[in-house]
Amino acid sequence: METATLLKQIGFIKEIDKLKYITRKTRLFNSDRHENDAEHSWHLALMAIVLAGHSNKPIDVLKVVKMVLIHDIVEIDAGDTFIYDTAKNHTNTEEELRAAKRIFGLLPAEQASEFISIWEEFEAGHTNEAKFARSMDRLEPLLQNTSNNGGTWAEFNVGYQQVYDKKSVIKKGSEAIWEYAENLLKENVEKGILRK
Amino acid sequence: METATLLKQIGFIKEIDKLKYITRKTRLFNSDRHENDAEHSWHLALMAIVLAGHSNKPIDVLKVVKMVLIHDIVEIDAGDTFIYDTAKNHTNTEEELRAAKRIFGLLPAEQASEFISIWEEFEAGHTNEAKFARSMDRLEPLLQNTSNNGGTWAEFNVGYQQVYDKKSVIKKGSEAIWEYAENLLKENVEKGILRK
Repeated sequence: METATLLKQIGFIKEIDKLKYITRKTRLFNSDRHENDAEHSWHLALMAIVLAGHSNKPIDVLKVVKMVLIHDIVEIDAGDTFIYDTAKNHTNTEEELRAAKRIFGLLPAEQASEFISIWEEFEAGHTNEAKFARSMDRLEPLLQNTSNNGGTWAEFNVGYQQVYDKKSVIKKGSEAIWEYAENLLKENVEKGILRK
Repeated sequence: METATLLKQIGFIKEIDKLKYITRKTRLFNSDRHENDAEHSWHLALMAIVLAGHSNKPIDVLKVVKMVLIHDIVEIDAGDTFIYDTAKNHTNTEEELRAAKRIFGLLPAEQASEFISIWEEFEAGHTNEAKFARSMDRLEPLLQNTSNNGGTWAEFNVGYQQVYDKKSVIKKGSEAIWEYAENLLKENVEKGILRK
């Protein structure tokens, strides 16, 4: 592989360091410290590897891992969108696509296409891999908010039904994990952590 | 898969959140902010995926990704070892093995064995996957220190030959990346970023 290819790849590697500065609303487990997108993506990748056996359908684990490792990279340009922010949720698609083209576009052409396509597949959420990747993305903050006495649910006054609707995406990736998640939500209501 | 399996996996997923608090000596690109192990592992995973085509030998990319995602998890118990700290470098192997057994041991037995074995393979550095994973682990701080006007080399007064010896491990994983790295080290000496 020629030097030009490597130099483009190194350029991308340097650029994505910025993901470490993109702060999420969610905080670390049992903590006041906000999580950043790089830490979040690392956690999802390991969750996907560990939990892959619970997927409803057979999945290409490497593809799922790629998805979760890159799924938030567009936020370097477009910023973090809070999942319960209904206004922004539907208006920044174009901004994110521009970001995907700019940032993944730093890579050699073939890899750029692959990464944009994997990111789009994740966003669309139709394939088995995307469904499982998206279930990981919903599960982590559920566990974090549970550990933080409600976390962002309490902070932004988000009620049970809203949370339930967002989290039910987990079911598309894994019935088994959804069963666990659904029980956890019920427990959170019983404990007063989540408002019904 | 039964509930007991899932609960063990969730226990592991919660525990490894602690990696986000383990601070490395190295700082982010063009930055004063120290990197933590979770961010570092995320970066290496994406580097491995992007740069896999430069490996000297064919590699199982998913295995390399698993290696880099978990390679520092033992530091939750054993702490970060600075690569140029010659004293600790050779004495904490036992502590790290204990950590690996405790933390990966939270997983269901089969996964625990797999993770301990992958971690040991990375540490031993003999297989093609381990060689490539280790080359990623050496490349990231080289790029970071270069961007930070010497970074930890300047901070801890580490000279060219010491850096060169540590970095030459890259060659075992990829001749092409090593050629790039060797040139970068020479440039750093010429610019006075690295002391000869």
